[in-house]
Amino acid sequence: MTDDLPPHPALLPAGFTDLLPPDAEAEARLTETLTASFGAHGYQRVKPPLVEFETTLLAGSGAAVAEQTFRLMDPESQRMMGVRADTTPQIARIATTRLAAAARPLRLAYAGQCLLVRGSQLAPERQVAQAGIELIGPDVPEADAEIIVTAAAALAATGIGEVSVDLTMPPLIPALLGDTSAHAALVRALDRKDAAEIAAHGGALAPTLLALLEAAGTAETAIGRLAAIDLPAPVRALADRLSATVAAIRALMPALRLTIDPVEFRGYRYHTGVALTIFAPGRQAEFGRGGRYLCDNGESATGITLYPDTILAVAPRPALRPRLFLPAGTPAEAGARARAEGFATIRGLAAAADDADEARRLSCSHLWRDGRAVPLEG
Amino acid sequence: MTDDLPPHPALLPAGFTDLLPPDAEAEARLTETLTASFGAHGYQRVKPPLVEFETTLLAGSGAAVAEQTFRLMDPESQRMMGVRADTTPQIARIATTRLAAAARPLRLAYAGQCLLVRGSQLAPERQVAQAGIELIGPDVPEADAEIIVTAAAALAATGIGEVSVDLTMPPLIPALLGDTSAHAALVRALDRKDAAEIAAHGGALAPTLLALLEAAGTAETAIGRLAAIDLPAPVRALADRLSATVAAIRALMPALRLTIDPVEFRGYRYHTGVALTIFAPGRQAEFGRGGRYLCDNGESATGITLYPDTILAVAPRPALRPRLFLPAGTPAEAGARARAEGFATIRGLAAAADDADEARRLSCSHLWRDGRAVPLEG
Repeated sequence: MTDDLPPHPALLPAGFTDLLPPDAEAEARLTETLTASFGAHGYQRVKPPLVEFETTLLAGSGAAVAEQTFRLMDPESQRMMGVRADTTPQIARIATTRLAAAARPLRLAYAGQCLLVRGSQLAPERQVAQAGIELIGPDVPEADAEIIVTAAAALAATGIGEVSVDLTMPPLIPALLGDTSAHAALVRALDRKDAAEIAAHGGALAPTLLALLEAAGTAETAIGRLAAIDLPAPVRALADRLSATVAAIRALMPALRLTIDPVEFRGYRYHTGVALTIFAPGRQAEFGRGGRYLCDNGESATGITLYPDTILAVAPRPALRPRLFLPAGTPAEAGARARAEGFATIRGLAAAADDADEARRLSCSHLWRDGRAVPLEG
Repeated sequence: MTDDLPPHPALLPAGFTDLLPPDAEAEARLTETLTASFGAHGYQRVKPPLVEFETTLLAGSGAAVAEQTFRLMDPESQRMMGVRADTTPQIARIATTRLAAAARPLRLAYAGQCLLVRGSQLAPERQVAQAGIELIGPDVPEADAEIIVTAAAALAATGIGEVSVDLTMPPLIPALLGDTSAHAALVRALDRKDAAEIAAHGGALAPTLLALLEAAGTAETAIGRLAAIDLPAPVRALADRLSATVAAIRALMPALRLTIDPVEFRGYRYHTGVALTIFAPGRQAEFGRGGRYLCDNGESATGITLYPDTILAVAPRPALRPRLFLPAGTPAEAGARARAEGFATIRGLAAAADDADEARRLSCSHLWRDGRAVPLEG
């Protein structure tokens, strides 16, 4: 609908929007496509509530979004509840409580809305749709690879031709540095990928850190460089796990655009293994992110959250039903037939002076005339 | 999944639940079916936010759900926001602001979650899904009829064979009594359909009220009785509008089970014309309700909200993809082919001692063996 008025600036709180036709339909269809693809890959849907007790919602990995969680007083229990700001902790809770006895690996999927207390300058939205998958159970490279190719397949199902996946290993730098809080200047330098500052603050670790910085880029090149760096055993194990994950991805999806950044770790607050971000080609949009984490009970899991709102801006729009005007008095059977043929039928509520004019006024492309759908010119 | 543990009683606040497999999938598919049917009938989807400023959320017809609305303080604007307890007022807001210039009649659809502050004994849920349609514009019987047959068609699309629609005219009794608050005992008697008490408290209106009480039942019978009652002109106009709506429904859907209750009015707090409830046959479940109301700017509209959670309990379950186990190392192309054939593929992450046992352990009905999907016995 192109004839809408500009919104009154104070109509909705900042970061909340009305999706209008045809955007709301496109977003719903996109989410249906993503979840149907997850289902075809064996991920079974669950639907946690929008609201939980604070104590369960913010447990484990949920603590990372505590500041972004709206709180509500529950008049029934007199306890504090939170509105989810992220779905992954809820799925982890379901996996380790209601579905504790379900066979592992346990593959779950979800789609729904989240609320955030504050938007940022780059991402002002405070209601964010999420559609995702979680693979609960074995901590193996094949599991990390599976969620990545499943997410890439879901994006391909929406008509997005190509995506780029950036792999990181968030525990690697902390494993090398020990207590990262004792190295504030160095962490800042790593975060900015500032080689001069890393050299200045890296001390004895500077050569290793600079080599790791160099080992970022296209997966196969980066993995070769990573293999050549001399690393302490626990750090080497993490680097090898990253390489094994690349190999497992390649076995399933050889052509996926894959980069590695072993130095990146600050954006992945609760990740305990391989983490990732999925970008549009050229990185102009972030389609999703995820990685390995521990459930509240210590069980390992990995998952990816896709952002339908972001994907919607890039994905091809779904074909909508052409709109067919049925003049008042058109038999009900004609409408049923036209809908079965793929039209959206718009019924006249009263006789119109000119049916074709009325059809155009109602944004119809077709008019029911003489027992059939006739395309309207102009 | 039948092997889930019983939920810990205090895990979630009362009235909030986790939907597990396969229920969550069934609910999502059901909602997709409803909204696809709305779309085929020309209702275009909109998606208002979960949260709005209290001032807009509770304006107009939204005032009816003020007590059931959770409030949140917005840290950005320092104003109070509410989480929607009903979607209709939001659609009316969109229609009269963002879409004020869109052609009338304006047909809009929606689907989403609502939160309620308190559950009742009969309906303990505090998160309620809604899927509905609103027809904004002409106040004519054909519009009232259209939303009813559109809702009935959407329910039929879910596989529900038959529904029963009960029509009421909430302004009729108030138009007859004048100020209803001056007739508390009589209103209570009408509410209970207690003929003796109506006779006792009805005064000069008692014969008319008892005749209206008698004029409840199957639409055609009731309309005949309603036509024979002597009513003041404004009340007669309302009764005739109810009859005209029945005629308009019959023109579109002759076989719909239709009853009328002209005395019912207390459950329809903001309705200004024909209102309705859609029941499962036998009335064991309420699938939806709706009716005519005024938007905040005085524009007339009518709509119906369906309750997917209630429908889910009655509707036939969708066929799910049969689960096919792909032993570790199965080529990626085989999985893609099996998914295209309608299977949900479950990939082995490591070699299993016995592929068939592993497939059964993961609730698969089929195993990929010798290049094809083989059904598993037992």
